[in-house]
Amino acid sequence: MRITRGYQDWPAGSVLVEFGRTRVLCAASVQEGVPRWRTGSGLGWVTAEYAMLPSATNTRSPRESVKGRIGGRTHEISRLIGRSLRACIDMAALGENTIALDCDVIQADGGTRTAAITGAYVALADAVTWLGAAGRLSDPKPLSCSIAAISVGVVDGRVRLDLPYEEDSRAEVDMNVVATDHGTLVEVQGTGEGATYTRSTMDKMIDFALDGCAKLAQMQAEALAAPYPGELPGAKA
Amino acid sequence: MRITRGYQDWPAGSVLVEFGRTRVLCAASVQEGVPRWRTGSGLGWVTAEYAMLPSATNTRSPRESVKGRIGGRTHEISRLIGRSLRACIDMAALGENTIALDCDVIQADGGTRTAAITGAYVALADAVTWLGAAGRLSDPKPLSCSIAAISVGVVDGRVRLDLPYEEDSRAEVDMNVVATDHGTLVEVQGTGEGATYTRSTMDKMIDFALDGCAKLAQMQAEALAAPYPGELPGAKA
Amino acid sequence: MRITRGYQDWPAGSVLVEFGRTRVLCAASVQEGVPRWRTGSGLGWVTAEYAMLPSATNTRSPRESVKGRIGGRTHEISRLIGRSLRACIDMAALGENTIALDCDVIQADGGTRTAAITGAYVALADAVTWLGAAGRLSDPKPLSCSIAAISVGVVDGRVRLDLPYEEDSRAEVDMNVVATDHGTLVEVQGTGEGATYTRSTMDKMIDFALDGCAKLAQMQAEALAAPYPGELPGAKA
Amino acid sequence: MRITRGYQDWPAGSVLVEFGRTRVLCAASVQEGVPRWRTGSGLGWVTAEYAMLPSATNTRSPRESVKGRIGGRTHEISRLIGRSLRACIDMAALGENTIALDCDVIQADGGTRTAAITGAYVALADAVTWLGAAGRLSDPKPLSCSIAAISVGVVDGRVRLDLPYEEDSRAEVDMNVVATDHGTLVEVQGTGEGATYTRSTMDKMIDFALDGCAKLAQMQAEALAAPYPGELPGAKA
Amino acid sequence: MRITRGYQDWPAGSVLVEFGRTRVLCAASVQEGVPRWRTGSGLGWVTAEYAMLPSATNTRSPRESVKGRIGGRTHEISRLIGRSLRACIDMAALGENTIALDCDVIQADGGTRTAAITGAYVALADAVTWLGAAGRLSDPKPLSCSIAAISVGVVDGRVRLDLPYEEDSRAEVDMNVVATDHGTLVEVQGTGEGATYTRSTMDKMIDFALDGCAKLAQMQAEALAAPYPGELPGAKA
Amino acid sequence: MRITRGYQDWPAGSVLVEFGRTRVLCAASVQEGVPRWRTGSGLGWVTAEYAMLPSATNTRSPRESVKGRIGGRTHEISRLIGRSLRACIDMAALGENTIALDCDVIQADGGTRTAAITGAYVALADAVTWLGAAGRLSDPKPLSCSIAAISVGVVDGRVRLDLPYEEDSRAEVDMNVVATDHGTLVEVQGTGEGATYTRSTMDKMIDFALDGCAKLAQMQAEALAAPYPGELPGAKA
Repeated sequence: MRITRGYQDWPAGSVLVEFGRTRVLCAASVQEGVPRWRTGSGLGWVTAEYAMLPSATNTRSPRESVKGRIGGRTHEISRLIGRSLRACIDMAALGENTIALDCDVIQADGGTRTAAITGAYVALADAVTWLGAAGRLSDPKPLSCSIAAISVGVVDGRVRLDLPYEEDSRAEVDMNVVATDHGTLVEVQGTGEGATYTRSTMDKMIDFALDGCAKLAQMQAEALAAPYPGELPGAKA
Repeated sequence: MRITRGYQDWPAGSVLVEFGRTRVLCAASVQEGVPRWRTGSGLGWVTAEYAMLPSATNTRSPRESVKGRIGGRTHEISRLIGRSLRACIDMAALGENTIALDCDVIQADGGTRTAAITGAYVALADAVTWLGAAGRLSDPKPLSCSIAAISVGVVDGRVRLDLPYEEDSRAEVDMNVVATDHGTLVEVQGTGEGATYTRSTMDKMIDFALDGCAKLAQMQAEALAAPYPGELPGAKA
Repeated sequence: MRITRGYQDWPAGSVLVEFGRTRVLCAASVQEGVPRWRTGSGLGWVTAEYAMLPSATNTRSPRESVKGRIGGRTHEISRLIGRSLRACIDMAALGENTIALDCDVIQADGGTRTAAITGAYVALADAVTWLGAAGRLSDPKPLSCSIAAISVGVVDGRVRLDLPYEEDSRAEVDMNVVATDHGTLVEVQGTGEGATYTRSTMDKMIDFALDGCAKLAQMQAEALAAPYPGELPGAKA
Repeated sequence: MRITRGYQDWPAGSVLVEFGRTRVLCAASVQEGVPRWRTGSGLGWVTAEYAMLPSATNTRSPRESVKGRIGGRTHEISRLIGRSLRACIDMAALGENTIALDCDVIQADGGTRTAAITGAYVALADAVTWLGAAGRLSDPKPLSCSIAAISVGVVDGRVRLDLPYEEDSRAEVDMNVVATDHGTLVEVQGTGEGATYTRSTMDKMIDFALDGCAKLAQMQAEALAAPYPGELPGAKA
Repeated sequence: MRITRGYQDWPAGSVLVEFGRTRVLCAASVQEGVPRWRTGSGLGWVTAEYAMLPSATNTRSPRESVKGRIGGRTHEISRLIGRSLRACIDMAALGENTIALDCDVIQADGGTRTAAITGAYVALADAVTWLGAAGRLSDPKPLSCSIAAISVGVVDGRVRLDLPYEEDSRAEVDMNVVATDHGTLVEVQGTGEGATYTRSTMDKMIDFALDGCAKLAQMQAEALAAPYPGELPGAKA
Repeated sequence: MRITRGYQDWPAGSVLVEFGRTRVLCAASVQEGVPRWRTGSGLGWVTAEYAMLPSATNTRSPRESVKGRIGGRTHEISRLIGRSLRACIDMAALGENTIALDCDVIQADGGTRTAAITGAYVALADAVTWLGAAGRLSDPKPLSCSIAAISVGVVDGRVRLDLPYEEDSRAEVDMNVVATDHGTLVEVQGTGEGATYTRSTMDKMIDFALDGCAKLAQMQAEALAAPYPGELPGAKA
């Protein structure tokens, strides 16, 4: 896995995350104010949108903006990312600011949603730092933990982490796990693909995943320990 | 829980399932042929759509047909139901027939998606029987197991099965588990609601859920053991 | 015809109406305030939406929310129901409240729109009572009359009331009549189905329909004379 | 009322109809073949679409193509026009051709739907003549009667034909009647506008309307008796 | 070319413009206020929408409102018209009024967008006069020049003005030029149709076009010099 | 300007083009067959779609897939790119293959459409080479010339090439020119931004633009002269 911070100039946080051939661009844009239903609450908001470039997949996939509607898979992943990242942030400390996380898949080869979550955390952390520097936080430490995600699969009866697309597509079970750097769980989604799985297989997958997430958390921490590359982004709304 | 078979006259299977105040109408309609991408494969297909009546919720919810688009939650649950039910059926035995599962929530009080899956299995079983009686199955036994689902939550630190809406909305963790009557897992979705949860809480929730699903499987079996109420549906496409 | 009040727990009025095999669930939900164009007028509003469950028809019909647009027939019937029910209510007495009537067809066998109007009146009456009990009416008696509707058809040259689908679909003329319990007309819609009809046929159809509506009005009055089944709905917005 | 045939050059029939200030352009375009569900039946099809220019109304109305959806009123009127015109044509004689009737309101001042029907009949008759001349009819006489429509209203207690918008908007009852030149009825739609009406008012409105339609039928016949203005349209698909 | 002012009764300006067989109805409707993003600026706004009647083309074209979305060509031309007309008007002098220009093609035979611009200018001038008469302008002379547009094509190697559809469709280069009566350019759009063109061809096309626009400007001036036909429109919002 | 070929692994051509801070990813995907209206003609097709990542702009822009419709600007630019690239390719030599050009703006700072065209040509050339290597061309040399594009603006009265966003937004005239390496023109679009411009300004802008395009053509040729970076893409549909 490789994490490149400051990939774009305009957003407050912009991270290119690479897992094998999978590449996802995660941007965190700061917007003043919060959605209408939250206005006046003193609380901030974090939202996420996931999408894939048509050219990201092995055979070109049609553009959702042209089809005029977002597919179920896109919807589902966008909701998962938003929910996962909201678990690490204290909305009161954030104050009435919205952080929009855009996760755009540049190239897909399995594990795009977990890569997106892992990268989005880093972008979010940079956006929070930027907000702090701009004196716009209600409290200086809104992040209570870090968030990373990994996929686990069972192929030919063996549990494996982060399968590339070719193996993923013949996995018998597919699980996505989102966890914190404290080792607690945020979200677990396990699906038998045309098969069912036993309780013990599940336990083993969780073991593997928590292990994997711990390593990712360390890499996120290292990436964030480095100084921000280039000048700090300036012209955010 | 109460299961009423033969609730509607036209579909090959039609089940009203009631869990506390939650009431979901699950209909299984048989359609000749399969979607285009599957034609000629000799395999059948099972698909599902979930929806809520506007009047099903405590305060009226806007109609998705009027808004002109399906929300993310609806999309997500429809996909979950279809995926779950496809786990119990042998598509080759089904032959090139499609079974459409419509799960319409008449009244909502928590646990609508798990009630929908549990009821949809019974409707699916009736539709399969109907197809068999009509001589339209490639193989007489397409169902390899039964499918039931339950929700588990943690409220005030205690693990609880099938919370009504009021408690559900203040649950710290919310998990939906889909399992077979053999005790294997089909789908696990666990979400920390603004909180994270430990591995041991997760294990305990799975224990509770598998237990609950076993009881539901028994109730499904009993319901299906009774003769079909009224005349068998006749005029299916 | 059978009228079941209090079918759902949440809406202020909820009626299941059954005409032969046709079953329509009519819910009346109270919302504070009125649409923007009416705000500040001191007048209330009544609106209606009609829809059919996919499983309600002989062969499954596609879901309009999935298609992303409401069909012409649905639009037309929703408008008819709203217009018809607005004829019996004094908007000034209602005060700035909106009553949303949702008519969802559970099972269709001809005459769904007239069943919907007939049931919606009862749900509306219950919602008005509920509003009165909550002290939210500007005037205690907003309903000036009751509204019922019936369909009349000509089959094989004979005028007949309320045809089931099979006969309805080969009717030469099809008419829907909405009338009050005072015997006055609210709406008449008569259509030659690939045929035209004479003035005298029309007169005869109106005679039959007014007669039929008078009987329905009596059944509505009887249903409303009974005490509200179960506890009064409480948690309306 | 004024009828101008051959208003546009391309469609097989094109009629500008003027009723007071109301002006509707009715075009009948011939298309080879019929909708898929009718293919192979040997029968033709007639369909209609009604629309209003944004500039046709007293205050500009938003464009439905820009809103991205057709309103209920537009849907309803399009369906009424199609249904009405299908009553006069023998689909077997038409052969597998489709005639699309486009009724575009250039200027609105009440009675646009009835003007549209009345004009559409003349355009349809011209299109049928054109099809006959092209040797594309299965039978030379597909039209069994002519179709005209008129609106009747009750204003200040008096029954009146074809009200302009200003009077129409304060009518107590509004009725649209579609009739043939044989004096039979095709469609009757009568609506109390915030009021109900008695059976005897209804009878009187029908009397007035049938009278009015008879006069319109005569004007249509006269218009069609004249030779086609200019060269016959040529390049139809 | 023929320009007919006052074609419709309701809009503040309404012009039918005819170029050969091409006929476009250009209406200028005045609306109080400006779009939200401009409110409080003291500036006015001019917007445009272009559309084609389905019956305007040689073979019927489907209605964009029915398709539920506006095509790329329509979008493009609407934007071109708005941009072009905004070049001649002083938004501060207009005050916080919006003028909506609706250009509806009644019959198409090439050059509809340039005819629309040329006609829209005349409608705009009438709307401005109307606003002045109503005392609603911040400054009495908001129009700084007139705007006309013409198309130029190269067919069989020869440069030609305003081609009818049949020739236009086999043009090698197609250019639309919008110019003022001072001979300056507002917009130039030149496209090689499956071919490229030399700099000298381009120069020659611009020469022809500027010449053509100068003649059109004179015709616009003559049309506007005549008194307004009939009574001035009154009931604008 | 910098051109990076082989940026993505799956598409037959994939180019990252950078002009100042503007970065556009241009992918050329090969699809067997052509759109239905072209099937059986023996001719190929080239189509293009342009889009912007929400995070590409100075302040985040809403996602068009979420809005459910493509904006006018996006539509316009997609059409321009497709038209421009179709000018350089011999559709008969291409055979019945479609090349889809996806131009996704990663970062925007003025001149995104011209950068997209310039990059798309290089991606197209790589896709054509790939098709040739796969033996799927009807004729080995389908490209008759190269295509590049540049924007020219007038700022403070001076003609300037390729303005960054900040200067572009205050340009008095804005022109986009698409030209071939033979010095001929493909498309010219010049717009006065709230101002008009003289013929001589226009001439000067074209001079600058043709000059600029010649330089870009040379850079494209140099980029394409290098060997393809990494392995050739393999798994195209």
